This record gives sequence, structure tokens and C-alpha cells, in this order.
Amino acid sequence: MENFTFYSPTYFEFGKGSESKTGELVRRFGGSKVLIHYGGGSVVRSGLLDRVKKSLDAAGLGWVELGGVKPNPRSGLVYEGIDLCRKEKVDLVLAVGGGSTIDSAKAIAAGTLYDGDFWDFYTGREIEKALPVGTILTIAAAGSEGSPDSVITKEEGMFKRGGHGDAIRPRFSILDPALTQTLPPYQTAAGITDIMAHLHERYLTNTKDVEVTDRLIEGLLLTMIHEGPRVIKDPNDYEARANIMWAGMLAHNNVAGVGRSQDWNSHNIEHELSALYDCAHGAGLAVTMPAVFKYVYRHDVMRFAKLAVRVWGCQMDFDHPEVTALAGIEALENFLRSIGMPLTFAELGAKEEDIPKLVEALCYGDGRPGSISGFVTLNADDCTKIYKMMV
Amino acid sequence: MENFTFYSPTYFEFGKGSESKTGELVRRFGGSKVLIHYGGGSVVRSGLLDRVKKSLDAAGLGWVELGGVKPNPRSGLVYEGIDLCRKEKVDLVLAVGGGSTIDSAKAIAAGTLYDGDFWDFYTGREIEKALPVGTILTIAAAGSEGSPDSVITKEEGMFKRGGHGDAIRPRFSILDPALTQTLPPYQTAAGITDIMAHLHERYLTNTKDVEVTDRLIEGLLLTMIHEGPRVIKDPNDYEARANIMWAGMLAHNNVAGVGRSQDWNSHNIEHELSALYDCAHGAGLAVTMPAVFKYVYRHDVMRFAKLAVRVWGCQMDFDHPEVTALAGIEALENFLRSIGMPLTFAELGAKEEDIPKLVEALCYGDGRPGSISGFVTLNADDCTKIYKMMV
Repeated sequence: MENFTFYSPTYFEFGKGSESKTGELVRRFGGSKVLIHYGGGSVVRSGLLDRVKKSLDAAGLGWVELGGVKPNPRSGLVYEGIDLCRKEKVDLVLAVGGGSTIDSAKAIAAGTLYDGDFWDFYTGREIEKALPVGTILTIAAAGSEGSPDSVITKEEGMFKRGGHGDAIRPRFSILDPALTQTLPPYQTAAGITDIMAHLHERYLTNTKDVEVTDRLIEGLLLTMIHEGPRVIKDPNDYEARANIMWAGMLAHNNVAGVGRSQDWNSHNIEHELSALYDCAHGAGLAVTMPAVFKYVYRHDVMRFAKLAVRVWGCQMDFDHPEVTALAGIEALENFLRSIGMPLTFAELGAKEEDIPKLVEALCYGDGRPGSISGFVTLNADDCTKIYKMMV
Repeated sequence: MENFTFYSPTYFEFGKGSESKTGELVRRFGGSKVLIHYGGGSVVRSGLLDRVKKSLDAAGLGWVELGGVKPNPRSGLVYEGIDLCRKEKVDLVLAVGGGSTIDSAKAIAAGTLYDGDFWDFYTGREIEKALPVGTILTIAAAGSEGSPDSVITKEEGMFKRGGHGDAIRPRFSILDPALTQTLPPYQTAAGITDIMAHLHERYLTNTKDVEVTDRLIEGLLLTMIHEGPRVIKDPNDYEARANIMWAGMLAHNNVAGVGRSQDWNSHNIEHELSALYDCAHGAGLAVTMPAVFKYVYRHDVMRFAKLAVRVWGCQMDFDHPEVTALAGIEALENFLRSIGMPLTFAELGAKEEDIPKLVEALCYGDGRPGSISGFVTLNADDCTKIYKMMV
């Protein structure tokens, strides 16, 4: 195991009706003038936004609002949010929505206290100062409610990049599984896939002797395999929604990823797809993961066999472990198909002729050195082959 | 799943040599004058205490010290620590040791800022204010390095009771697995047993549909079953020590226990044993757990069968699930025996003729209503039978 630090000081208020605590929590974590940041229709239609405003009013707190966050959130709205926070002297940013809204809120919170261009944080500079962020989560997927990460797409060039720093970890997150019951099946399934991807990216490690985090990741994957189909069958299954929501947070606050090298190649390869086609990130991951895993499994056959046996219940083929390894990847494909996820470029709306453009952006975009690194290092030729496997 | 809040804001510095960060972390978390609190011989002999003092000196921090914490820490030393902190205007309590030292430090930290008798916190009053606590852990066992709990024994009457409150959660904890390599096998095994008990106490729930926390607990138990024997065989196995140390923290910071009712009857029944005989808490738990589980398994046979199948690898007997349930409890007994733990009163140094006294203290001591509650409610008659099963 490698040395590590772990710090996850987010306060979680979990369960049915927990959004009624919003005003109380904003006050507890030092907010007096709030930016309510959200996407569009559903939080308005469901009445959630009104309930949040009422909770803030009841606590005697001031607020302004900024809606319009899109999936794969854009830099343009972040600049707008920063201007608004400065003008209105906002002291806490409250995201009401899913990962895109929370990531956008984090970028605004960091940018407001920064003299330069906030995009610096998405090209390597660590975020050290930010307004406090609170969240009310409406989709179990990105894990942004408990993470120090944010992903933003820069409109100029359509680069999708990540920013990091403990300063943008939410101070509090409100997780009400009932709020996710109205999600359409496709979005629910995309969320499930994103959570499972966060777990796979941590499972694929080159660090030896990390049984405790291996077991945690396996346990969270087994949870998703058990609860995912329940919620696809019955979107109103509160208990399944609750299990998925807590697993989604744990899949990405890094409690199961400490002390080990991680992968993140699948995420990087996918980011170019959702940046270019504006597809759901989880759907893009469903297409990407099996291709990446089939391309790299020979790097550590026993790791993929372990995953196949412990998580997918495959029989271990002791004479041919690679058979077991591949059976696990196939089981993942079958699972993703069963919850309604795409597995090919065509189903995703991606085009084979765009592959050179995707590879160029992936391997050379924004100063990259011609390759991406993780579980294995992949150069432009590798990435071309991987994209072609998805066609 | 039940509604819950979860807040675990401890900063963990984990790995070989991490105690060199002591001064830096004390400063970061607001300390300027430190009480160094410890037990006896080993932290002195190993040179750890000197290294800690040097780290504080190098950071320009003041300190006083109070040694002498015993296993099953006593109220007497807590009163002494409170007086010292007040007199010396200490602003951070640093525990260097295992769970007993940390629990004693927490009691001192809470008592220093409280006008009344600190024992109030151990008879039901929640701890709302305390000096910040930091820890340098030398035994993987109690999980006190990440928990809001403390257990102290009151000399007058030898009552062993727990106190709770987010205010006593350590602000930072330094976890260096190498520091645990010098532990004798018996103490190491007692620590492993304590960690496994914390997991069982959470597994035995009456809440339905808690797959995510079930899976986390199972994963941590599987880790202990894998790593425990390695470290008994080779006390210098750093990797096994590291896996156990992180599992020990996660077993008790409640990340795997949220949203579900918990048991804690085994702990309560054991507390009377270590209070009366001053045995190692983990050893007492090894004697207690199998007896309690055999007494209560009929309350939910399928839960014990699940544990047996998923954690102990037992075959499910679908016609006779109770056979599987009991096979799991036997597997636990065999495991505890294999790492050198006692399973009977005689091996522990406990006496059958003391059972009435144990039951009296357990069920009626310190205002209890004649029973203890958890997975099932146990009255004095039940507890008498359970103690007799251990003879």
C-alpha cells in the first residue's frame, strides 16, 4: 500500500425529506447570502427549487439564483456565475441538481476568489481557495457531492477537463433518494454506469497488496449489480434508490481508492465522446469501458480474473485465467445492455470518421504529450484501436 | 434504509513515517500548547515519544505530558488530565497509543471544557464541546482514531461505560502501520478481534434493504480474514498491517453502519468482563461473540446464513438455513482460535461464580432497566444463560 492522506469533511444529511434542512445547514456552514445554482426543468417542475427557497427564507438567508446548467457543463455559465457572486457578495454556492450542476457550482466557487482565469484550475493549478459549496443531489451518478473534483467543458475547442482541490469539497450535501425517483430510466442507467466506472477506475491499479480497498470496491460493485436492476424495473423503489445513492457517494469520495495507483483512462477516453457529441457521460462510459478493458486486460490478467470471480460470480479457470478475465468483461457488457445502455458508436450517435479528431483531442489536446497514462499508458495508436473496437 | 447523518471530518495521515508530520498537523488544527497523553513502556522504549516531542519542538509548539494510561482506562487519570490541561492552558490533546489512550484523551478533552463532572458524559449526556484531539495510533483495534466515541471505567464500582459526541472526533489521526509491527501476537490478535466485533455489531441489524452497508461490512470482514493470519504468522508484514489498520478505522467510523439499527450487545456483555478481570477487550470479545450469536441467531436465521455464505464461504443449506447460520458461527470460532484467542471463561481467567455479579452490573448497573437492547433485547435471565455458555 502507498502512503496517503484522506480527508472527507463533508456533512451528509441523508434520507427522505432531508432537503427541509437546507436553511439550517447553510447557516451552520457559514452562509448568509447564497447563489442557488441549477439546471433547468425538473428541479423547477418538481417544486424542489421552491422548497429550497422557502427553507432559505425561513432561515432568514439572502439568495440569488442562476439556472441553465447543461449536461457536460460549460465554461460560459461559470464566468457568468463568478460575475454574479462578486456583484452580489455571495458567500456560499448551493448546487441543486446532479453532477453537472455541482461541478459548475464548484468552478464558480473557486473562480470567485481567484484573480486569474478560472480555467487555470482545469489545466493543472490546484484549487486552494473557494467559497463554501453545499449541494442538494438529484441524480446518483457523478459522486461530486462528496468529491474534491469538478469537470468543465471549455466551449472554445470543446476541451473537457478536470479541476481538483480540497477547497471545493462540499461542506454539506443533502441526499434524498426520493428526489431521484422521477428520473427517466436512461438517465438512471447512465448514473449507475458512471458509479460503476468510478469503481473500475480505482480497481485497475498497479499497486500490490491493497486487499482492503479491493474488497470495498468489490462490495460497492456488488451493491450496484444488486440494486441497479431493481430500480430500472421500478423507478419508485426507494430502498434501491437509497442504496445506489450512498454507494455513488462512496464510489468517488476516494475512501475506496486510497493508497493505490488508479486508472482513469476510460474516463479520459469517454470525455472526448461527450465533449464532441454531448451524449450522457454514463452512456459514453458504457461504450468505452468494455473496449478499454478488452484492450488492456493482458497487462494484469489475474486482476481482471479476480474482478470476474468476486464481482461477477464467474468460475475461475485455473488453467486459462484469461478466459475468466474475459468472461468478467462480457458479464459487464451484458449487465450494461440489460439496464438499457448503449455499447457501440452507432447507438451513442458517434461516427467512425471522427476517430482521428477524437484521438487528436485526447492525446494532444491542451498540452498533452501524445499519450494518456493510468493502468497502462496508451498512445495515439492504442487509442485509435480502442475507439475502433467501439464501432 | 433509515434516514441518517454522516460526518467524518478527521484528517488521516497514513503510512510509513507519517508521525514526522505531528508538529505540522498540530499547528494546522489549531494547537499551540499540547498535552501528550500516553500509556507506558512501549511508546517510550521504541523512541516514538521522543520523536513526537522533537516534531512538536521543531514546529515551535509547547507541550506537557501525562503517561500512565492503562488498558480499560480509568476515571482517576482523566481527572488528573483535566486538572493539568486547565492549569497549563493546554489547547490540544494528543494521544500517542491505542484505543485506551485515545479514549482517555477524549475524556480529558471533553472534561476540560465542562463545568460539571466529566462522568456525566458517560451516563447519557452528549459531548458538545471539547478541546481538539489528535492521535498517533500504535494498535489497530478500537477504531477510536476515527470515531466520536470513548469508553472509560469508573473506579468506584468498576463500571465501564461509553461517551459520545462529534466534538471528540479526532481532528487528525496519524496511522503508521510500521508502529504496530512490534506488538506481541496476543495483542495483535485481540485487536483483530475487536475490529471484527465492530463489524459484527453493525451487521446484526433489524433494518431491511441495507445492501450497501451489508456489502461494506462483509468486505471489511473478508479483509480481516485474509490479512489477520498473515500478520500472526509474520508480525513484520507491513502490507498486512496496513490493510488491517485502514480496515480498523473504517470498521468504526460508521461509514459502514449508517442508516441501520445496530447491535452492541456483545460489547456490553464483554465490558463487564474486562471491567472485572481487566482482560484485553478483544480477548473478552472472542469469548463473548460466539456465545451471543448462538443465543440470538434464531431471531433472524437468514441474516446469519448470509454472513456465513458471503464472509465464511459456507455452502447455503436451502432446506435448513439454520445449519448454514451455525456453520458461520463455528467458522468464526475456528478463526478466533487459529489466531490465538481464548474462547472460554477459563482461558480468559473469568469465574463461573461471578456470573450473578456480572449480570447485576450489566443489567442493573448505573441505572439500567434490567435488560440490554440491540439486535434482540436481553434480560438478566438471557444474560445469565449467555455467560454460562462461555464457561
